[in-house]
Amino acid sequence: AHCTPRGSLRYLLRLVCFLTLLGVTAALFIFIVDLSVHGLEKLRNLISSVTGGALGYVLYVLTGVTLCLLSTFWCAVLSKEAEGSGLPQMKSILSGFYDRMKKSLELRVLFAKSLGLVCAIGGGLPVGWEGPNVHISCIIAHQFYRIHFFRDLCTDRALRLQTLAAACAVGLASSFGAPLGGVLYSIETIASFYLVQAFWKGILSALSGAIVYELLYTTPLVEAFEGTSFDPSDVSRTQILLYAALGASMGALGALFIRCVRSIYELRMKHYPGSSRYILVGGVAFLAAAVQYPFRLFALDPRAAINDLFKAVPLHMTDHFGWAELILLPLAKFVLVALSIGLPLPAGVFVPSFLIGAGFGRLYGELMRIIFGDVIIPGSYAVVGAAAFTAGVTRAISCAVIIFEVTGQIRHLVPVLISVLLAVIVGNAFNRSLYETLVLMKH
Amino acid sequence: AHCTPRGSLRYLLRLVCFLTLLGVTAALFIFIVDLSVHGLEKLRNLISSVTGGALGYVLYVLTGVTLCLLSTFWCAVLSKEAEGSGLPQMKSILSGFYDRMKKSLELRVLFAKSLGLVCAIGGGLPVGWEGPNVHISCIIAHQFYRIHFFRDLCTDRALRLQTLAAACAVGLASSFGAPLGGVLYSIETIASFYLVQAFWKGILSALSGAIVYELLYTTPLVEAFEGTSFDPSDVSRTQILLYAALGASMGALGALFIRCVRSIYELRMKHYPGSSRYILVGGVAFLAAAVQYPFRLFALDPRAAINDLFKAVPLHMTDHFGWAELILLPLAKFVLVALSIGLPLPAGVFVPSFLIGAGFGRLYGELMRIIFGDVIIPGSYAVVGAAAFTAGVTRAISCAVIIFEVTGQIRHLVPVLISVLLAVIVGNAFNRSLYETLVLMKH
Repeated sequence: AHCTPRGSLRYLLRLVCFLTLLGVTAALFIFIVDLSVHGLEKLRNLISSVTGGALGYVLYVLTGVTLCLLSTFWCAVLSKEAEGSGLPQMKSILSGFYDRMKKSLELRVLFAKSLGLVCAIGGGLPVGWEGPNVHISCIIAHQFYRIHFFRDLCTDRALRLQTLAAACAVGLASSFGAPLGGVLYSIETIASFYLVQAFWKGILSALSGAIVYELLYTTPLVEAFEGTSFDPSDVSRTQILLYAALGASMGALGALFIRCVRSIYELRMKHYPGSSRYILVGGVAFLAAAVQYPFRLFALDPRAAINDLFKAVPLHMTDHFGWAELILLPLAKFVLVALSIGLPLPAGVFVPSFLIGAGFGRLYGELMRIIFGDVIIPGSYAVVGAAAFTAGVTRAISCAVIIFEVTGQIRHLVPVLISVLLAVIVGNAFNRSLYETLVLMKH
Repeated sequence: AHCTPRGSLRYLLRLVCFLTLLGVTAALFIFIVDLSVHGLEKLRNLISSVTGGALGYVLYVLTGVTLCLLSTFWCAVLSKEAEGSGLPQMKSILSGFYDRMKKSLELRVLFAKSLGLVCAIGGGLPVGWEGPNVHISCIIAHQFYRIHFFRDLCTDRALRLQTLAAACAVGLASSFGAPLGGVLYSIETIASFYLVQAFWKGILSALSGAIVYELLYTTPLVEAFEGTSFDPSDVSRTQILLYAALGASMGALGALFIRCVRSIYELRMKHYPGSSRYILVGGVAFLAAAVQYPFRLFALDPRAAINDLFKAVPLHMTDHFGWAELILLPLAKFVLVALSIGLPLPAGVFVPSFLIGAGFGRLYGELMRIIFGDVIIPGSYAVVGAAAFTAGVTRAISCAVIIFEVTGQIRHLVPVLISVLLAVIVGNAFNRSLYETLVLMKH
């Protein structure tokens, strides 16, 4: 009696209801998480600025360290499944290990993941939110299965797989407002085989999420990605070789980044095998906060920094960057992010990679501008660099699609695709993707 | 000795060489076909305009009918495998029927398909070139397997599948200059299961093809798609419901179109089961030419008409359209295309659907403008209509991606995705996609 035949109108209605509801709920949840992070950041700045001076510095570091410790505390108390990105676990579940991995879709993991994420980013760690958002969306989908009307969607294995894949797409789409890129990125990072039937389901769900995202982010409560405004002539075909060189270098740099994350983890395991999670997290949080107070640029929301780097205007007309900042930011972030990724708390990798790539790309663009003159628009190199470095780290070509949706421009299609492709190929020559490396590290 | 281990540099080099070479060769071949079509069209217009008047009319019809007869003649003499779109055959091959379907990848099919396509479009039949281009690319790939250096790629089943899938992507990418959309559209229409490893291979090949396409089409020898230039405010969120209604109607209209194609075929089979291919083709070609001579708009290159419909300017400022033309064009094309699709000659369906959808969409947009005033920009409805009708006919969501690449704008992401999704869902409620219907018709 529970089983409605496929292809019937009732079946379709149920599926459409589920996917839309999932998209809307997940996007709302993710927005609230984002809002809380923003609130915490404001509060920290307020506390430290009230006193100012040395005491302000101490308070800033203290609040940062406390929040990060709280983040790993939630994971230790509620569920260790909430640690890390979440994408690798979802990959295992969608590869057929649902029964064994089901415990990472429980309600308390949702609390651990969202509270941990809010505290970690609010506490100043430069970690991303897209991987945790994917995990959060999958848990929400899994909780929806309990509703009687939707029970079929869980008992039917093929449908469960497709709806969970749609949930992954929603998580990504709602992190960037990129429905298409979200679906494609989730396919590339989570599936090895893809059932083409699942495509429209993912798009429907991701689109519902992205519409909610658009509505929410037009009210400027938190930072959002801004569209770029390159002139068609700004992204020129004659510079293809320069873009390609940037893409290849970003691929190599991405591979180096993965190597660093792995080395840090191995060193830790070798020299301090039994070290407490609180010492690890506290140390990195202390470092981050100590650097961020004197250099406020490092504490800037990554979206604001990326928007600034993507601007078509010259460097001295950007809001936050001069030469010194442009050189320091990607280098410092590279180190800090590599230190933070392996920590036992919720931590995504896409957004920080995006920022590091945008920084290196803009730097490369500014250097090229010195050599070749005003024909070079460094902002377009920041766009290409962001996509290429992220592709070098995640080995997903759909980083290109996400960047088209984030920037709202598709004019830089050819340079972005070329550099992303080169980054993936060059990166693959050195090692595996970060997600696979993280899985290997922990087993 | 022939088998190079996977993952080795030599293996990667071979694959990259093959994919790039395939992209470049297929794009060049497709460009030459396009150029020949253009030449034939010019010649026909020249011949008929030299004499003019009634004799010009007769000459125009006569050359048209002769070319179309020639088109089906090539198929009859060289290979019947060249008839139709080619996409359904490629689907069979990629679903595992390589050994049984191998004969449709022979060299003489290439001649039949390209000569037949040139004669059919040159002769004035409103058929598309993207399906035949996919077939052509696959044949080129299959011929490349003969080269000693590339032999492994054919003997290894998994690699053969992936490289043939890449060839399908190239064919589509080189038809529109849309690498990303080409890859996604080929996945949706050709595969049921997709091996995610094949993604970068498809992108690399399609990108090589698209770069060649860009270089060639910047020399204005033939018509190319132009980018649109909508202002961000032209595609507004407040009109979502209007776009959605258009999408749903286009889905229903697409289903009707498929029903018409099927009915025409069944009527023909019932009443004239043994009718000669020459009578069928001659009849439709006569009708097309007879209509096109007095109404030159119908003979216009679909790309020129689509560019015009997509313009943001008011109707009276377009190059070819007034109210009468706007109402007549989609209706006449609907009938003519439905008659032409089932004929025994190479015939794609994407480009004509695109034109019909753009026409209906613009018409809808102009009507909405009368109701709601100047806030409505009818050109944006033409864009949404084109994507939605094509999706209604092919049931592929990636029509949306192709339209972003063709127009060079991604600002209309949300309306396009919503209407495409609705078109697919509404269409699926009525019948199967045109490609599946064509396969069912012929067996």
